[in-house]
Amino acid sequence: MEEKVINAALLGLGTVGTGVYKVLKGQEEEMTTKIGCKVKIRKILVRNLEKAAAKVDDPAMLTNSWEEIKQDPSIDIVIELIGGIEPARTYILDALHAGKHVVTANKDLIAVHGKELLDAAKASHVDLLFEAAVAGGIPIIRPLKQCLAGNHMSEVMGIVNGTTNFILTKMSQDNMEFKDALALATKLGYAEADPTADIDGLDAGRKVAILASVAFNSRVVFDDVYIEGITKISAKDIRYAKEMGCAIKLLGVARNTDTGVEAYVCPMLIPNDHPLATVNDSYNAVFVHGDAVEDAMFFGRGAGELPTASAVVGDIFDIVRNIVANCCGRIGCTCYKQLPVKRMEDTYNRYFLRLHVEDRCGVLAEMTEVFAKYHVSIAQIIQRDSQSQDDHLAEVVVITAKVREGDFKTAVQELSNKSSVKRISKTIRVYGK
Amino acid sequence: MEEKVINAALLGLGTVGTGVYKVLKGQEEEMTTKIGCKVKIRKILVRNLEKAAAKVDDPAMLTNSWEEIKQDPSIDIVIELIGGIEPARTYILDALHAGKHVVTANKDLIAVHGKELLDAAKASHVDLLFEAAVAGGIPIIRPLKQCLAGNHMSEVMGIVNGTTNFILTKMSQDNMEFKDALALATKLGYAEADPTADIDGLDAGRKVAILASVAFNSRVVFDDVYIEGITKISAKDIRYAKEMGCAIKLLGVARNTDTGVEAYVCPMLIPNDHPLATVNDSYNAVFVHGDAVEDAMFFGRGAGELPTASAVVGDIFDIVRNIVANCCGRIGCTCYKQLPVKRMEDTYNRYFLRLHVEDRCGVLAEMTEVFAKYHVSIAQIIQRDSQSQDDHLAEVVVITAKVREGDFKTAVQELSNKSSVKRISKTIRVYGK
Repeated sequence: MEEKVINAALLGLGTVGTGVYKVLKGQEEEMTTKIGCKVKIRKILVRNLEKAAAKVDDPAMLTNSWEEIKQDPSIDIVIELIGGIEPARTYILDALHAGKHVVTANKDLIAVHGKELLDAAKASHVDLLFEAAVAGGIPIIRPLKQCLAGNHMSEVMGIVNGTTNFILTKMSQDNMEFKDALALATKLGYAEADPTADIDGLDAGRKVAILASVAFNSRVVFDDVYIEGITKISAKDIRYAKEMGCAIKLLGVARNTDTGVEAYVCPMLIPNDHPLATVNDSYNAVFVHGDAVEDAMFFGRGAGELPTASAVVGDIFDIVRNIVANCCGRIGCTCYKQLPVKRMEDTYNRYFLRLHVEDRCGVLAEMTEVFAKYHVSIAQIIQRDSQSQDDHLAEVVVITAKVREGDFKTAVQELSNKSSVKRISKTIRVYGK
Repeated sequence: MEEKVINAALLGLGTVGTGVYKVLKGQEEEMTTKIGCKVKIRKILVRNLEKAAAKVDDPAMLTNSWEEIKQDPSIDIVIELIGGIEPARTYILDALHAGKHVVTANKDLIAVHGKELLDAAKASHVDLLFEAAVAGGIPIIRPLKQCLAGNHMSEVMGIVNGTTNFILTKMSQDNMEFKDALALATKLGYAEADPTADIDGLDAGRKVAILASVAFNSRVVFDDVYIEGITKISAKDIRYAKEMGCAIKLLGVARNTDTGVEAYVCPMLIPNDHPLATVNDSYNAVFVHGDAVEDAMFFGRGAGELPTASAVVGDIFDIVRNIVANCCGRIGCTCYKQLPVKRMEDTYNRYFLRLHVEDRCGVLAEMTEVFAKYHVSIAQIIQRDSQSQDDHLAEVVVITAKVREGDFKTAVQELSNKSSVKRISKTIRVYGK
């Protein structure tokens, strides 16, 4: 009996593309038994044919013409791994319109144009899957859409950027400053030549948009997500956090509240007894809370050649199973609600505040008076003589109780105008009840 | 337009049954939008009609006749939550033969009769799903069968019994002895009146059989799994483990090696820097290693009314989506290999050995001589004066390097025959490289 074959095209042969090529090759023998037929990469779109030739068995499958792939009716699945908005968006839309299924790891695109692409997939009765767009190899999109479909999810949050987690881990474990830890990350290949998207929180913000959309069944786009990066975190902040029983992590947080969706990325203190506090190095982890499942966490490699390829190939296999069972488009867009997204100033958080004040009687009373005016309660406080030359200053570190962000900011503004307050050195949000 | 409805029957209205009833009710409003049609519980099989009446809106749906459900052609899905082998097995086979889909949380049954049931489902072109049979609410079966399908999994292991994890956590954190921690677990409802299946490792053993079968695509049944419980672990063992940088956990371990599958449940020392070491209280976590995804971990509630119901309802929704898309049986049994299962004595492990020896010169040399004879290398050693009245004894605690279990046992047997060795107090396996 002739073995049934489904043909696929790979767009891009960078790190993840090469990984997908390898993983599919490694599955070749048992693929038919496992998923009902064989998938073969027939064409690979690359920019530089010569450079790519060394990476594949048969250079004849390489092309630099998207038209060639788009117009090939034998290609059933397009695997988009070139990243960025254009030309990826056009290619994917072309493919969907041509009735081809698409797998993508492109978070930039899904976080902004997710609805357009999923609508196009639906119109053509084909699949568009993107498990690899969030948290690399960690299964999270399919678990949310299927395994946890019986829940009303109230929260999905986590460490979804490996580069910044590596940097913060080094700052914490080896007492390094940000710039040194970044230099180390670059040297070891954890950070890209231009690390902006990672350290400024943009990459994490895209993932939060996607996670929130899937978890809450309501579209959240990249622009909805409030974003702060880790560039201002110092080793001193981390030392104080430790003293207060916390780690500092770049967290992506999405909450489904009665008054709307909260979606933000920022460095946060997180108590040491939370499972995320010990997720270190370049590992990622996504924590979810649902009304039935309660707490659950998914941990693993958030990036890398083979882990990301694992997610891509999982999607490819799912599409093949759909083709074999004749049920393509079985699960499409699951955003059937239209929840409002809250402004950051209307979210409630706890805050870590580090400031330098005059070292004299009555200053603490002045501070607490301003706090009281804006409903800011103090949960923890540390006061130290300043280590600086100016020995009339004291450093005060406060962790507040939960308070509306707008109120807290007004309080801090008013504090900074007091003559007794020499400088506000840092405010960092604190994750938790 | 009339809303399409799929009818289901619930077998059992205990903890999980009640949870499933509640979760389905909570999803009623958005179910049609989410999964394409509505599922309604039409019949519930219970033993005591009167007792059950208080738990449901309409007592008319209660029955104590399986025949009534089996012969009702309007029932499409049977949700088996009565547990145990019989009559659950007969009911499920009846349902499958009648062309009904089945969701079950029954680990006892799947671990022993999984093949028979999945074969029957295949023959009738219906679905048999069992996500809730392993690790309660934690998504693990579907991630293994779908998201991670591009991997050759080499290991799946974890903490898959909440009762014993609670007991070991209390022993470790509060320095309690086993019997006191068990009494507390019983009092708080974490342990059943008859805790045997939990504390002897049987429950975990069933889950390991299921996990190994799914992860390695080769059937492993309950009888294949070597099992030891936690009843012999003492607070002293845990203290020594801590000194050596480890926690003691009841681990279920399955490994796919070149010489066959290893599958066992036993208390093990695990290094504190392993993510499983900090999974405490009644939480479960499953750790997997695949050639593409590398390490990944799934953490959450391993039991309980709503968390388990979350997994059951996820399965129900998946079946409904299959019915709507007309692709039932899309993913069935994935055991297409026939790998041998190794004997425990042929596995390689590290060992923690605690023994009392004569407190005199030369005894350690005698010990190491026996070890050398059987290829046992020492990785760590602690020697203490015995705290007992008999002050001619010393307590020695050893952690070995990796060694074949059969060889280690022979070495320990030979040691125990030495006049200088007064008693072998404990041997516990050590997880790790």
